[in-house]
Amino acid sequence: MNFNYFLPVNLIFGTGKINLLGKETSRCGKKALVVTGRSSTKKTGLLDKALELLKVEGVEAIVFDKVDQNPLTTTAQAGAYMAVEAGCDVVVGIGGGSIMDAAKAIAFIAKNPGDISEYIFGRKIGVEALPIVLVPTTAGTGSEGNNFAVLTNPENGDKKSLRTNAIYAKASIIDPQLMVTMPKQTIAAVGFDALTHSMEGYVSKASQPITDMQAIYAMKLLAENLKKVYDEPSDLEAFEKVTLASTLGGMVIGVAGVAGAHALEHPVSGLKDVVHGKGLAALMPEIIQRSYYYAPTKYAVISKILGGTDEKDCSKVVRKFLEAINLSVTLGEMGVTHEDVDWMAENCMKVSLVSVKNNPKEFTFDEIKEIYHACI
Amino acid sequence: MNFNYFLPVNLIFGTGKINLLGKETSRCGKKALVVTGRSSTKKTGLLDKALELLKVEGVEAIVFDKVDQNPLTTTAQAGAYMAVEAGCDVVVGIGGGSIMDAAKAIAFIAKNPGDISEYIFGRKIGVEALPIVLVPTTAGTGSEGNNFAVLTNPENGDKKSLRTNAIYAKASIIDPQLMVTMPKQTIAAVGFDALTHSMEGYVSKASQPITDMQAIYAMKLLAENLKKVYDEPSDLEAFEKVTLASTLGGMVIGVAGVAGAHALEHPVSGLKDVVHGKGLAALMPEIIQRSYYYAPTKYAVISKILGGTDEKDCSKVVRKFLEAINLSVTLGEMGVTHEDVDWMAENCMKVSLVSVKNNPKEFTFDEIKEIYHACI
Repeated sequence: MNFNYFLPVNLIFGTGKINLLGKETSRCGKKALVVTGRSSTKKTGLLDKALELLKVEGVEAIVFDKVDQNPLTTTAQAGAYMAVEAGCDVVVGIGGGSIMDAAKAIAFIAKNPGDISEYIFGRKIGVEALPIVLVPTTAGTGSEGNNFAVLTNPENGDKKSLRTNAIYAKASIIDPQLMVTMPKQTIAAVGFDALTHSMEGYVSKASQPITDMQAIYAMKLLAENLKKVYDEPSDLEAFEKVTLASTLGGMVIGVAGVAGAHALEHPVSGLKDVVHGKGLAALMPEIIQRSYYYAPTKYAVISKILGGTDEKDCSKVVRKFLEAINLSVTLGEMGVTHEDVDWMAENCMKVSLVSVKNNPKEFTFDEIKEIYHACI
Repeated sequence: MNFNYFLPVNLIFGTGKINLLGKETSRCGKKALVVTGRSSTKKTGLLDKALELLKVEGVEAIVFDKVDQNPLTTTAQAGAYMAVEAGCDVVVGIGGGSIMDAAKAIAFIAKNPGDISEYIFGRKIGVEALPIVLVPTTAGTGSEGNNFAVLTNPENGDKKSLRTNAIYAKASIIDPQLMVTMPKQTIAAVGFDALTHSMEGYVSKASQPITDMQAIYAMKLLAENLKKVYDEPSDLEAFEKVTLASTLGGMVIGVAGVAGAHALEHPVSGLKDVVHGKGLAALMPEIIQRSYYYAPTKYAVISKILGGTDEKDCSKVVRKFLEAINLSVTLGEMGVTHEDVDWMAENCMKVSLVSVKNNPKEFTFDEIKEIYHACI
């Protein structure tokens, strides 16, 4: 039993905790770049509320609202340029996983100029970033609880994580009340992303006792509550549990990493800009089916949590779970064709090698192609 | 569901990880005050090894070896004086809970001169300390995983925690191999302290989902492994699990606090210098018996983990657990008399009020006296 565990994030969890945003940010800086998406935080009034909360605590703010789903390296660079030009000394990210990842990357680039891909591929190391405060509005990526920022390079479709302790948030304000405005299909997709984080972190070769503990707890919370909130998004008590599970899932992968499904999904959403959770849904059952033999005890635990009996029916119970939240999809339905498989498999080996190796069964290049074909 | 969770400690866990001491310390400073006890780390050769590891990484070191069981405020002040005089910029604590607590307090006092009691009782606030690196040699207090330092004031017997985020260790190196030299009776006493941390943090009014998760996991590890290592201290695999449970217990109480048993034990060891884990063993069954009605679901969980059936037999299964590790004791056997009860009850209300309030049943002054009398 050998492991390292480090999570220097102040997790502030609870309904109404958004009201601490100004106070927490003012501990980190005086001028904030507020990173958000193009529309949803504006429609819900959350952005205005956030700006008011910052103002009351004397924090000046400018807004960067150019972040889309599957955020681009170029977008993060533009945000960092804006932060530096305006003299921002703190970055606040308010939104889903894409927003939080972009905010983390912006905070990093602001202190480490040059080509961000150099850092993503580990050819250069940066140890500094502007301080970061995160406010998730979806319960899925768990980016508020780890040191990842997944970015896509628009020049070549590479979708890969920047991973450095410099981009742990100083504080993450996790307010379940902010989640209840998610559309149903988003609840399902990000919820399954959260479940996948715990499933993959749990079976990962880099798993360890503390992440096992977190993953088991999070999987139980999702098994009991994700369908509930999908059916009834106003069920705040169930939503709290899904939200907690999401943050825990982020903590799990921050230490244990992801495995097969994330490895194969990144090329898909890098190429086709699909919803990440849907891509995972299309891949996960097939990957479990080809992996359970290599970590039977752990897949049996997952299966039982989801209502199955042992490792052999794990893939089947995951399919049933997906059906229950209307997330049974194929890669084909998302526009992926058999002609895309060669590029995706090659890209998978390029951007996801660490996650491929983390999977209980380390798939070969040919096996990866087989899986893609089977899931189209 | 409202909570805050923060643990900025780098936990480095595993057999042989002691070898990272020099490297981890050199990240924090160039001259270390090494805090340790009077004998055991010398006998085992651990102190010499630690000094060598520091030297190899270019860290100068001086040793402060004046810390006893139930460390005194005056001892911590003497250590801090030595650290400041010698220009130390990092404090390394190597030993059991008393040593680690003393090291944390020394690091704090070095940056916050004056009467430490002012900080302990919250009349003054300090936000800085010298960086701290901890190496536990007992599996019990979990001090490596939280921001407490329990000190006793020799002038009045007050035994109370200094509690400030400034004294989180930068790194804690938890090497199970260092534990196997513990004498059997120490294994039992510190192991029961660890179990009590999880039991009390779990039932505490300040408990929250993340500490519940940790406490349940830790209690299971101890239920399955403490007797094993008591019977066979060379069982390193079991020892790893006990050690992990100990660190988790420290993390639990760092957030959820302790409750009745710790509240009533501190006056006992403040007055009679008894072994803390023995004092807890004398008090815990009686306290559970008077508390379970107020948190039946949680006491039922504890009971089941320890082999019982529901909350009603929780006290009984704890007594059985204590018998199995030869730790069935009374306060009377440790020198406490009925004449001491008035002072202890008064002192309990003075030093432990927060923990008294954390207990599912908040005992009155008269009830506290009854419990002491019953346990003598």
